[in-house]
Amino acid sequence: MTLIGIDVGGTNSRVGVVSSEGRLLARAAAPTDAARGSAATIETWLDLIRRVLDESHANSSDPLAIGIAISGPVDINTGIVTNPYTLGGWPPTDIVSPFRAAFPGAVVIAENDANAAAVGEWRIGTGRGTNRFVLVTLGTGVGVGFVVNGKIQRGRNGDHGEAGHLVLDPSGPPCYCGANGCWEVLASGTALSKHLKNSSDMDSDHHLCAIEQAAHWTGLALVNLCAVFSPDAIAIGGGAGAQFNLMEKKIAEMMQRHRRLVPTDVPVLAAQTGDDAGLIGAALLAQVASIS
Amino acid sequence: MTLIGIDVGGTNSRVGVVSSEGRLLARAAAPTDAARGSAATIETWLDLIRRVLDESHANSSDPLAIGIAISGPVDINTGIVTNPYTLGGWPPTDIVSPFRAAFPGAVVIAENDANAAAVGEWRIGTGRGTNRFVLVTLGTGVGVGFVVNGKIQRGRNGDHGEAGHLVLDPSGPPCYCGANGCWEVLASGTALSKHLKNSSDMDSDHHLCAIEQAAHWTGLALVNLCAVFSPDAIAIGGGAGAQFNLMEKKIAEMMQRHRRLVPTDVPVLAAQTGDDAGLIGAALLAQVASIS
Repeated sequence: MTLIGIDVGGTNSRVGVVSSEGRLLARAAAPTDAARGSAATIETWLDLIRRVLDESHANSSDPLAIGIAISGPVDINTGIVTNPYTLGGWPPTDIVSPFRAAFPGAVVIAENDANAAAVGEWRIGTGRGTNRFVLVTLGTGVGVGFVVNGKIQRGRNGDHGEAGHLVLDPSGPPCYCGANGCWEVLASGTALSKHLKNSSDMDSDHHLCAIEQAAHWTGLALVNLCAVFSPDAIAIGGGAGAQFNLMEKKIAEMMQRHRRLVPTDVPVLAAQTGDDAGLIGAALLAQVASIS
Repeated sequence: MTLIGIDVGGTNSRVGVVSSEGRLLARAAAPTDAARGSAATIETWLDLIRRVLDESHANSSDPLAIGIAISGPVDINTGIVTNPYTLGGWPPTDIVSPFRAAFPGAVVIAENDANAAAVGEWRIGTGRGTNRFVLVTLGTGVGVGFVVNGKIQRGRNGDHGEAGHLVLDPSGPPCYCGANGCWEVLASGTALSKHLKNSSDMDSDHHLCAIEQAAHWTGLALVNLCAVFSPDAIAIGGGAGAQFNLMEKKIAEMMQRHRRLVPTDVPVLAAQTGDDAGLIGAALLAQVASIS
């Protein structure tokens, strides 16, 4: 069996061939450019798959398992993505069927990208050996995936809760999600760049101050995750998460402040899997789907 | 086997004999009056047990299973309660051993009261048949229990997360938990009575306004629970929850407002089990402990 993972981001789409232990054997990437519409964009993804299959010298008679990690509400039963933001302008789109048509016999699954990344980080990163694991992806948006005893926590109908839209400050700025002062609008990469754009001089002090703000709200969000989910460990990944060393102290202060009742004495670590967590997790989820 | 449940509240302690189907066969109650200290208070609980055993004509050779539901941090492994509030002034206290001493051979367990009530309501109330159930107890405090596939959701070491202390408004009033603007300080019965005390005329309009406020914050808290936990159903119980009919519309508005991304289209119901949920749940948990 050849395992393929795809991670669709608002800016770039990444595809990889992944070993059954979660090692990346070959990879390729291209701009997502979703404004072209779904047909052209999906064709790009299919081309990327053909390219990594070539590069990895995969046996063409080997069955394929393809996992697609994508942001926004994904119906894991129908493969329909209803994405109000990252793939701006797309109507609800079945993203699974085109892959099944292009690769007959392949097992194809779609998964929320935060969930897929959490599975990747749980399998080969900081989550190894934990029973209740949270991965927070701080990027263009804020994604959160929960892994309980090795399985993605899902609502009824397989729902992903979108914990990146936890409301933290109801008098805060509005988000496209309909809330004011949710985690994403206060602490995502997008929030950081807005903050910097609004400051008249873009010196490094301003940059640090913006990161402090993001760390403050992320710390408060983690307190709320501890109150509701009680994790064993929390990892922070994604583009903005790469600045974790600048956020660590503020996050720890916030956790400490709320420790009297809420079990916030939980390790908070920088994710180890980096940008590949989503595609690795998606590939491993496709593997599970292919054998069950 | 004779099943006994005890629910220790800040004001009253309730004890009941419970059938293996969760029916209440006999009950007794007395003021908790924790200021007397732990020895005298625990003696009251033991007397209540003796009384309900007499009243229910339980066979004295039948083995006992005793479940104690109690608020605040409870270590379910050691039976030690560290309660900063409801049993004000008690040092960390082993509440399980005195029961084992008084009733030799009895299986005795202690459980957070919100968890116990959630189990009770899941077994015989609105939670029947759900996979991911939440019971919110709006009383003197705000307690939240999560039941996943029939089991209490626990953190490592069996932690209860204390989701009643979710932070909803960081610029809100301070709570004894160390946070500002947590759910409990904004929407508990205590918050309601403070609100009423601060208003100069205590007419029914003021009462309604206070309940509207509690409903507003409870609605926002439920949105955050949906974002992190994705429940199948939510029930509201407890003393203030008895006014659910006055809160229902506001809560629904808040859930609706955040529906774009967060899966808030979840039934929110008045709890059916009433004040007995905690002791029934505790008794059923003791039953499970006695056979495992």
